Amino acid sequence: MADKALNKAAARLDDKTWGHRWGFADTRFVVNPDRSVKVTGQRYAVSGYDMPGFIPFVEEMLGVQIDLNDIKPERADKPVPEPNLNAGFMADLAAAFPAARHTTDRRERLLHSHGQTTADEVYQVLYNHLDRVVDLVVYPESQDDVVRLIELAADHNVCLVPYGGGTSVSCALKLPDSDPRMIVSVDMRRMDAIEWVDRENFRACVQAGITGKVLEEKLAELGFTCGHEPDSVELSTLGGWIATNASGMKKNRYGNIEDIVEQVTLVTPQGVVENLDAMPRVSMGIEPQQVAFGSEGNLGIITRAVIRIHQLPEVTRYGSLVFRDFKTGTDFLFDLSRSGALPASIRLVDNVQFRFGQALKGRATSGDKLMSRIQKTVLTDVKGFDPHELVAATIVMEGAAAEVAHQEAEIKRLARKHGGISGGAHNGQRGYMLTYAIAYIRDFLTDYHIIGETYETTVPWSRISEVCDAVAARAAEMHKSFGLPGRAYVSPRITQVYHTGVCIYFTHGFSAKGADAPDRIFAEIEHAMRETIMAHGGSISHHHGIGKLRRDFLPQTLTPASVELLRDIKAATDPQNVFGVANNVFAPEPAGQ
Amino acid sequence: MADKALNKAAARLDDKTWGHRWGFADTRFVVNPDRSVKVTGQRYAVSGYDMPGFIPFVEEMLGVQIDLNDIKPERADKPVPEPNLNAGFMADLAAAFPAARHTTDRRERLLHSHGQTTADEVYQVLYNHLDRVVDLVVYPESQDDVVRLIELAADHNVCLVPYGGGTSVSCALKLPDSDPRMIVSVDMRRMDAIEWVDRENFRACVQAGITGKVLEEKLAELGFTCGHEPDSVELSTLGGWIATNASGMKKNRYGNIEDIVEQVTLVTPQGVVENLDAMPRVSMGIEPQQVAFGSEGNLGIITRAVIRIHQLPEVTRYGSLVFRDFKTGTDFLFDLSRSGALPASIRLVDNVQFRFGQALKGRATSGDKLMSRIQKTVLTDVKGFDPHELVAATIVMEGAAAEVAHQEAEIKRLARKHGGISGGAHNGQRGYMLTYAIAYIRDFLTDYHIIGETYETTVPWSRISEVCDAVAARAAEMHKSFGLPGRAYVSPRITQVYHTGVCIYFTHGFSAKGADAPDRIFAEIEHAMRETIMAHGGSISHHHGIGKLRRDFLPQTLTPASVELLRDIKAATDPQNVFGVANNVFAPEPAGQ
Repeated sequence: MADKALNKAAARLDDKTWGHRWGFADTRFVVNPDRSVKVTGQRYAVSGYDMPGFIPFVEEMLGVQIDLNDIKPERADKPVPEPNLNAGFMADLAAAFPAARHTTDRRERLLHSHGQTTADEVYQVLYNHLDRVVDLVVYPESQDDVVRLIELAADHNVCLVPYGGGTSVSCALKLPDSDPRMIVSVDMRRMDAIEWVDRENFRACVQAGITGKVLEEKLAELGFTCGHEPDSVELSTLGGWIATNASGMKKNRYGNIEDIVEQVTLVTPQGVVENLDAMPRVSMGIEPQQVAFGSEGNLGIITRAVIRIHQLPEVTRYGSLVFRDFKTGTDFLFDLSRSGALPASIRLVDNVQFRFGQALKGRATSGDKLMSRIQKTVLTDVKGFDPHELVAATIVMEGAAAEVAHQEAEIKRLARKHGGISGGAHNGQRGYMLTYAIAYIRDFLTDYHIIGETYETTVPWSRISEVCDAVAARAAEMHKSFGLPGRAYVSPRITQVYHTGVCIYFTHGFSAKGADAPDRIFAEIEHAMRETIMAHGGSISHHHGIGKLRRDFLPQTLTPASVELLRDIKAATDPQNVFGVANNVFAPEPAGQ
Repeated sequence: MADKALNKAAARLDDKTWGHRWGFADTRFVVNPDRSVKVTGQRYAVSGYDMPGFIPFVEEMLGVQIDLNDIKPERADKPVPEPNLNAGFMADLAAAFPAARHTTDRRERLLHSHGQTTADEVYQVLYNHLDRVVDLVVYPESQDDVVRLIELAADHNVCLVPYGGGTSVSCALKLPDSDPRMIVSVDMRRMDAIEWVDRENFRACVQAGITGKVLEEKLAELGFTCGHEPDSVELSTLGGWIATNASGMKKNRYGNIEDIVEQVTLVTPQGVVENLDAMPRVSMGIEPQQVAFGSEGNLGIITRAVIRIHQLPEVTRYGSLVFRDFKTGTDFLFDLSRSGALPASIRLVDNVQFRFGQALKGRATSGDKLMSRIQKTVLTDVKGFDPHELVAATIVMEGAAAEVAHQEAEIKRLARKHGGISGGAHNGQRGYMLTYAIAYIRDFLTDYHIIGETYETTVPWSRISEVCDAVAARAAEMHKSFGLPGRAYVSPRITQVYHTGVCIYFTHGFSAKGADAPDRIFAEIEHAMRETIMAHGGSISHHHGIGKLRRDFLPQTLTPASVELLRDIKAATDPQNVFGVANNVFAPEPAGQ
């Protein structure tokens, strides 16, 4: 019934990743002498070819000229203070753990002291400094290690911060500089084993430090998939997904994280919170293990979970559709959501992102050129689409052959109803994969004084246009009020479809060249954007969570009694505040509020 | 965007229902002089015709002769003690609420002092007496009423017990006789308005006291359905569904209650716990409103919820299939669950229940007889099915025409693969509707000294046969050890299908004629059955909840730290124990444990 885990080797992903910047070190955007750009390595669909359209497109969108010789200098000497070591804790730690399971190495400490939030974290570590750096990094290798570590922390009044993939974009990993205690980062990535696989019932018990990439690789060897694909899937971990309430691109087929996890183990200073059995569904009163979801490091450490797994799909097929405009594309999505034929993933990008996708293409061969001319003729002459209005949907279908055929037929029928035309499977696959490039593009453009971020929200169907328009208008207004060069790039895409609404992802960036404190300006603008989103019916977050970035908006989200209840849950599970990362309502009130 | 509620009239369902026994007063099984039975009224598919096969089937199954003249006498004088009235509370109540909003009427008090658990509740009120009866019944008509009532209860140390449909089968409404305080039943059924309907986003805000029947009627007038159909749907309420983690027969299409509810309002003595916005999906940290689900009356009163609604389906179609045996039927369900074509509802009854379904048929016309003979010939001669092994699946398909056609084709294909043959749409519809008769049958047979109950569990796919066999064996063993007449009737049906397992419903009954305390014997046997179920991989409950009936099994379900967390949540939301109904882990330890 249970397969042994394939390996227990420690995952030291940092060796292969950039560390402070996003992603893998084999991959970066570089500029060729002719101003075309290229992605190094071979990892992605966009890797390894010249993109002549990239820089011109960015310049057009932002309304600025990019001086490729004016590179914002990254700080070479990254200041890391001496660690604040609690002597009693260190002595007990040395007795309880082998030396290879912890380090005070400066580089490791710095790497574990931030997530990927643009302004508040990445910008600080690259160009400024971090106010607070963890004093020690521990790499537990078992549930026993975690239990022991928490005991030691409680005994010596040390603060623990769970660390997974480090991909947080909510400042959840930003350390509270007011905490005088020793702060220990608990890197969970050595706990990456699949403890067992139950082939008959399609479940696996998986340690929480596994990354999505490794999870899928290991499961695929056994003929299975979990199917959870957040944009960060290569780096983020199972524990992180649970702690943030993650959502995957293929949630229509595999569910969001709360649909995938049947049982979760949360080790708190007061003991282990978990259901003793994994069950397809159970009615047992209030479910205590629910507090693990969205716990954001505040209550304890998620060590493992029993997840649903699926046989690798019989068929995987991609598709893409082009519609006259965003409204039409949205109407199509709405109808499709009612059809009972939703594919694993369907996303809708606006015209700007559609054109960005074109700008990421390579130099066209004569064949490509011909096809492209034919496509253009069909779109603009036959269908009468305005090239500056049309939008595209990318589609991933997975499942049994009959299921995929049914989806394909329904998608075709509804696309026809809304005047959409096929953009081909290749463009669908390419569009789906482009997601993985976005964070690399952010890091590339930052070198040229362009600062950007993506942020998401949930919104009811009826308010999609309203919230998109309001965000665009507010972004323009803020841009102007800060006297920034050129104009803001703001572009929405619909990434998830639900019965009552959708998830919208906004990509937002601008040139901050010449500005005094681009990071502070960006942070202020992002805050204003959330204000606008919520004023127009959007949620505080669809799947990124609150962390420290969005906590100002919690009073608009929860009643006072709800906030009180959360604080009581915290007091009950972690009365000493061992898990003092201070996210969500557990952040201390900022001075002056 | 929002329709006004259609009516605000108080729902006084008790006028039309039996009250202590199950269901509507127009419906009961009666015996004809020729020993055939008939269901009075016209409410159900089984109403209004003679069933000659019913009594013989029951006799055959139970191995006893039923003496139709030996009717167990219901106690006519139902003892109700004088109410224990808290004078200060009563005075404040009289000042705060009109007289029509509360009563000390003996009948109303008794009606509000039990649920529908066979041995511990219905049997007691019919043949014995209730140890504890509520002292007052209050009928709030608004959220303000509820808030005010809770304030008064806290001020005067009075205990409140929320009451919905009264259909609990977990002793959740059984009153703790050790509580010396005045106990007030809070009947929520006057709060049955649909506060608004959001037609664009397919949501409705509904007061928690609405019954499923009224909810569906009101929504249907507007062209919508909620689609939540627990077996109790005619009587149970939205608030009750949330408080017990209810599941509906059509959950494949509409979801279980946690999938249906986007926002829930729980009024506790410490304030209102709710999310301030209903959202398709949100990541906001730990979600406090989750504590309403499974709260079982322990924390506060659920007053309203925003639920997902759906357009009435374009097509509704029924079907039925006959398979060689239970194992084959289960294999078919498994394959179907992987097909992406699961219909709204699919259930599998074992051979015994299949034959019970036949016994509930009327006197055959000559046409019926011919059809029946042909069917029998196909089943037994052509397919070689053993009439005492074959089983049946009933199917409900709902949705768009193409969706239903796809489901139908896939069901047909997979049925063929497993050698199943169609039993026709009529039998499918009839089988689906038979569900509503089960509790009436229980009450009918109780008159003849036959005691019975249904109980449910969740079980992984691989342990379905094991748990069914173990339950049957343990039932036989217990039956023998109590020296009961005849034999036990134990029959499973699979009512819900999930990715990793199923929900099994067991129907269990026996003649207790001549036994000293049938209720105590039944309670002991039911307890033993849960023990057996859990020893063989079943859950503590799929959707009935814990109440007081299953609390002995919580230590097998939750870690000590989880139990502690629940108690801390209770202390935080209801520090004075206003909601002292003492279900789940909030029950005081029984003496001697």
